[in-house]
Amino acid sequence: MAEQSLFKLKDGWNLEIPEIDENQIVNYGSNLLCGNGYLAYRGTLEEWGKDQYKACIVSDTYDMADGKWRELSNAPDGLYSRISIDGQDFAHDPGSLDLKTELNFNYRYGIFERQTQSNREERNYQILSARFASYDNLHLIANQYTVSGTEKAEVLKFKIGIDGDVWDLNGTHLKNFSSDYDSEKNILYIKAETVEEEIEVVTALSFKINSQLQNIAVEEKEKAIFLIIEVNNPDQKEIRIERNLIIYSSNDRKDPLKQALEDAENCLEFSYEELLKKHKAKWDQRWERADIKLKGNLMDQLAVRFNLYHNIIATPTHSEYLPIGARGLSCQAYQGAAFWDQEIFNLPMFMYTDLESAKNILKYRYHTLDGAREKAADLGYDGAFYAWISGKSGKELCPSFFFKDVISGRKIRNHFNDWQIHVSPDISYSIWKYYLAADDIDFISKYGAEILFEIARFIHSRVHFNSYKDQYELIRLLGPDEYHENVDNNAFSNYQSQFALKIALYFYFKLQNEKPQELKKIVDKIDLKENEITAWQEIKEKIYLPKPDSESKLIEQFDGYFDLEDTTAEVLEDRLIDKSEYWGWPNGVAVFTQVIKQADVIQLFTLHDLFSEDVIAANYDYYEKRTQHGSSLSPSQYAIVAARLGRSEEAYRYFKKSAYIDLKSSNKAVSGGTFIGGVHTAAAGGIWQVLINGFAGMKLKKEGLFFKPNLTEEWEELEWKLIYKQAKLKLKLTQSEFEVNSDKANAKEIEFKVFNKKYNIEPGEKIKISL
Amino acid sequence: MAEQSLFKLKDGWNLEIPEIDENQIVNYGSNLLCGNGYLAYRGTLEEWGKDQYKACIVSDTYDMADGKWRELSNAPDGLYSRISIDGQDFAHDPGSLDLKTELNFNYRYGIFERQTQSNREERNYQILSARFASYDNLHLIANQYTVSGTEKAEVLKFKIGIDGDVWDLNGTHLKNFSSDYDSEKNILYIKAETVEEEIEVVTALSFKINSQLQNIAVEEKEKAIFLIIEVNNPDQKEIRIERNLIIYSSNDRKDPLKQALEDAENCLEFSYEELLKKHKAKWDQRWERADIKLKGNLMDQLAVRFNLYHNIIATPTHSEYLPIGARGLSCQAYQGAAFWDQEIFNLPMFMYTDLESAKNILKYRYHTLDGAREKAADLGYDGAFYAWISGKSGKELCPSFFFKDVISGRKIRNHFNDWQIHVSPDISYSIWKYYLAADDIDFISKYGAEILFEIARFIHSRVHFNSYKDQYELIRLLGPDEYHENVDNNAFSNYQSQFALKIALYFYFKLQNEKPQELKKIVDKIDLKENEITAWQEIKEKIYLPKPDSESKLIEQFDGYFDLEDTTAEVLEDRLIDKSEYWGWPNGVAVFTQVIKQADVIQLFTLHDLFSEDVIAANYDYYEKRTQHGSSLSPSQYAIVAARLGRSEEAYRYFKKSAYIDLKSSNKAVSGGTFIGGVHTAAAGGIWQVLINGFAGMKLKKEGLFFKPNLTEEWEELEWKLIYKQAKLKLKLTQSEFEVNSDKANAKEIEFKVFNKKYNIEPGEKIKISL
Repeated sequence: MAEQSLFKLKDGWNLEIPEIDENQIVNYGSNLLCGNGYLAYRGTLEEWGKDQYKACIVSDTYDMADGKWRELSNAPDGLYSRISIDGQDFAHDPGSLDLKTELNFNYRYGIFERQTQSNREERNYQILSARFASYDNLHLIANQYTVSGTEKAEVLKFKIGIDGDVWDLNGTHLKNFSSDYDSEKNILYIKAETVEEEIEVVTALSFKINSQLQNIAVEEKEKAIFLIIEVNNPDQKEIRIERNLIIYSSNDRKDPLKQALEDAENCLEFSYEELLKKHKAKWDQRWERADIKLKGNLMDQLAVRFNLYHNIIATPTHSEYLPIGARGLSCQAYQGAAFWDQEIFNLPMFMYTDLESAKNILKYRYHTLDGAREKAADLGYDGAFYAWISGKSGKELCPSFFFKDVISGRKIRNHFNDWQIHVSPDISYSIWKYYLAADDIDFISKYGAEILFEIARFIHSRVHFNSYKDQYELIRLLGPDEYHENVDNNAFSNYQSQFALKIALYFYFKLQNEKPQELKKIVDKIDLKENEITAWQEIKEKIYLPKPDSESKLIEQFDGYFDLEDTTAEVLEDRLIDKSEYWGWPNGVAVFTQVIKQADVIQLFTLHDLFSEDVIAANYDYYEKRTQHGSSLSPSQYAIVAARLGRSEEAYRYFKKSAYIDLKSSNKAVSGGTFIGGVHTAAAGGIWQVLINGFAGMKLKKEGLFFKPNLTEEWEELEWKLIYKQAKLKLKLTQSEFEVNSDKANAKEIEFKVFNKKYNIEPGEKIKISL
Repeated sequence: MAEQSLFKLKDGWNLEIPEIDENQIVNYGSNLLCGNGYLAYRGTLEEWGKDQYKACIVSDTYDMADGKWRELSNAPDGLYSRISIDGQDFAHDPGSLDLKTELNFNYRYGIFERQTQSNREERNYQILSARFASYDNLHLIANQYTVSGTEKAEVLKFKIGIDGDVWDLNGTHLKNFSSDYDSEKNILYIKAETVEEEIEVVTALSFKINSQLQNIAVEEKEKAIFLIIEVNNPDQKEIRIERNLIIYSSNDRKDPLKQALEDAENCLEFSYEELLKKHKAKWDQRWERADIKLKGNLMDQLAVRFNLYHNIIATPTHSEYLPIGARGLSCQAYQGAAFWDQEIFNLPMFMYTDLESAKNILKYRYHTLDGAREKAADLGYDGAFYAWISGKSGKELCPSFFFKDVISGRKIRNHFNDWQIHVSPDISYSIWKYYLAADDIDFISKYGAEILFEIARFIHSRVHFNSYKDQYELIRLLGPDEYHENVDNNAFSNYQSQFALKIALYFYFKLQNEKPQELKKIVDKIDLKENEITAWQEIKEKIYLPKPDSESKLIEQFDGYFDLEDTTAEVLEDRLIDKSEYWGWPNGVAVFTQVIKQADVIQLFTLHDLFSEDVIAANYDYYEKRTQHGSSLSPSQYAIVAARLGRSEEAYRYFKKSAYIDLKSSNKAVSGGTFIGGVHTAAAGGIWQVLINGFAGMKLKKEGLFFKPNLTEEWEELEWKLIYKQAKLKLKLTQSEFEVNSDKANAKEIEFKVFNKKYNIEPGEKIKISL
């Protein structure tokens, strides 16, 4: 799809959609999302409803409607509005031809604006509306809603209020609605409960209107409360409503209604502009560290910020108890829950720009240890086997049957929930990286070590020893490439598992030496035995790690992969009986072939520095041809490896593939009537890695911080910031120079290497390195 | 299907089909099969052809037509005949209304007879034909073909000869036809080669005719040679042709043509009756030991002999290099190859009635060790992993894709060839039983030990040690119940594997003590290391064996079986989208349920004496309800266990289910256009076990021979013979008495136990035990 049909570039922060394309409504909803990590409101018009995928998804509201999938709830819509002017509707409903609507979105502050005007001369009305999900009060969505050209109108009727009849993916989540309107304070609310967990969800709305109120009628329905506001002979150029939508659940406060009404009332003390100012100040602080400046291609600059923005608002940085959803809060798809994406894709940006948030992300895994322990025990293992799809409790949310054989209509038993074990060692890996980046041994002793030990335990219970080959093996896996289930010794899973054991052992002995009391506490708590440590050591030594072939340099993705039919995704397309068939397990077109869904062996290269460049190049060349990129996780990883290999063009091609997945709506949002859209937050997080780990060639190892820059020729300059070992650095990369600045407030000298040459930078110092 | 519609009982050896039912043609072909272990000729009329599934399958002619499945070849049909009388065809072609054909079969001598007569009064002709596959000369099929009522006919034309255009299941197997007719000797032949292996197959035919030959014309086609014999004004009541069909392949003789012509010529020196006499003498010898006499139900008597006969003629007792086909030589289905059926179902009868044949069956596994070694190596294992489908070489014949998803049309990757490992320990088990029955340590040192050691090696390389649980496990199995692939710790496979290790160790140490030279030879030959013995011991000690639950007494069929949906086959029937769907892997209706195809845990009880009666009863009650009996192997095993439990009615019901599978044609012969019929030789072999191991309650253990009779009330008496420790015994069981006779030629006293009471019987002695 051509870019111009979707959006117009205004500058490096703003995009404009000059005219709504009705085929893109579902994508606008996600791309133009106002969010703050607590809630998010989709980029839809106020007069729209559930048919236009309108939603306000609220974190920490997991609920399962009768036998369906557990997912986050969609709060009642408090920004609902329709206007009629002199008896005629003035609403941009899909299909209406006489209105033209322009949309604008600002990614610095997450401000959604719509501007609608009549195409007819005789009715020169306009709607101008702007909203943001406050970064200052996470429970607030502020909206300024203006109708102009009204000076000659006789009767304006506004229907505003809260509509609880919302779009749900898997069953209705709210019940027991109650509502009220306080006409003195101009505050109304709806309170409801989720169907399963009976979480109270309150949507309160306070508003101001810059006109004489002639008449307000209240319309109460089972799931809605509306006000019909009639303004007669307004004699005003414009009528403006300023609204404060407040959302609380009983998971936030004991009495969410009280708190919501309080907030709603408080907000009335401020104008929209004042609320916006406080909001912007918080975002300015965030961007101070998170922004990446890119010169040379304005559209790429916008795309980068689009991805940074979405990675930020997807993340419940305010809490250490909540996961990052695979689609953030952009919709209910993927159950609002965390996958391995959280650690491997979303986390790195935070790890280097916002340590508190990074810590919260990892603490979430600490708080969900019991869920992971329960899953392990249920499947006959020990320790912590983290859920493939992890909500608040950490219990496995992934259903056993979720794909369908579209030809027979029979459900398919996919084994994402029991065979895809790498999520646990992936968490260990991320704890290690956080430790290296933040130099934070306290985190390890308080949270990390217990996670690491329980994961090591899980691996211990999950491996099998092949006494004949004198090696430990991992049998019956599903690696990152999800088209090949039931495989043995998936290279990625085996290497990650060994790494997880190494780290567990490393910290076990480190704490033994340095913090024996803290270690003892953990050991006592989880009843860790000395012989377990011995077992971990032995498994670490003897676990089978597929090595590069001495001639071809290839690493086999799993036992027997190279014996599979060698073909390409294009050939497999032709074998489909139905275009919407699932390609994988148990009998899809890819299963018996070498065609893979996504980076797998390649994913290993982005995480570890274990192989020589010729091995990486040979594997890149081999697997790249056989990768379908059926997952949005894939292109960013290929981009990183290509960039590190100095394959600049290729890297840029994969950067674009990843950066524009949502902006260009290149992935389907609706398939066979099922919504699978929303923001691809892993791709969003991946973009940070493509720039920093890929084009700047950054690697963080135990030995230190390494750079091997290889900026694509498409760009002139890349500028970003890092927090490394608690020190603030600013980095700038051009085609010819790499500049590192150390903040003068930093406490100590920082060491790093560029092309393996060592540099030490003092606080306040600037180092320029010619490339 | 009602019995009377299929056959009429004449006596305990003969059955009669008073009139051909054309819907049963495919079943007549198998049930009325003339065979001798070298070849078999289907029960079809001489005038029929491939559309009536006519075939003469010849052992040792494995061949694969272009990319299809390897299977035995069907020799050119040398009994082909058509007659015309005064210009009118006299042939019982399907659909013809004016002829009536009666069929008779004698199971003592395997004699097929047909008798056809015109329904019209004016043409009172008859065809009377009888044939047998000689048990004296295995290459001979003799036929006496008589046309009577011909005294008033003017011209009789016989078209006889050899037709090479034969019925093949998987592609044409013969090429390069050549033929000739020696008019002096009245011998004609066709020589052809198999397409892949270029095995020469020769069909020669010699004949005599009791009439003046007026004229013989030769008609040669690419794949056929016919003689048109014209007899004018015969003035004879009947014209009789006696034919000798001789078949040799280049796997039998260097010059099969020369040998076939010699045999054909020699046969002309004997009348049909003389050849029959020699044939009968050999069968009399066979039945002398093999027959089982049953009083009280003549039909059951016939059914028992039907099964004994078919087990005998399926078995290439003349050779130690050939397998027993799962459908014997009754057709090409199941590739004419051995499954585990051979040892577990076919072998026991021979083991107690014909030691040489039993030895040949086991030697076949010795001669195919290399095939089993190759399979193990191909799959990354060591030792001998016997083929799931084993032809002459022992290489795996089982295709990776053989079932089809009938809904999508896509092939299914079934894992019979790589996950169904129990065939190897099943062979070990049978060697042990043979040793106990025959007291034949020489067989062990010459053949058995090498097999046992290589199987133990395979198990060693196939198990995985779960260091967390301190146990060895068998991962990713397909047990006897073929609807559940990819399971772990299948009770049957685990117990059998442990048993195989025990036996290997037992004989290792026994030979070390008693025949150290012989042991050394084997150890040197297969390079057996001391540490392998240690490993076998450890695995034997620590292999996980699913134990009966202390409360429910149930043994779980595999890890997680009890967690599957608990339902019945009837319920699953309703879930079928297409009646011909495969129920098993990967997504069939049974996969995620406890419905099993066949005896699995129950199969364990028929082989071993490990569990108390209450455990066996509890498991019988549980699994019986959940068994579909989708395999013909299943009912006999349930019958044995039911009989041993004293559940006489239930045992008899399962006896009938098994004994009449073919006689009542209760299993489909053709499904979706694919021939899956033929004689169920495992069910045939299973009947011997139902009678002896079931109703007579015989168990052979290291501690001796045990009986616990429990004759069904349906019968008055059962009489059979056994060879046990080289001694000949005759046994008779009635409702009130168990009689054992020891042949006076026996060399020694024999000990046995009845209801755990010990008896010793001297040569020539008779012991009567009141029950």
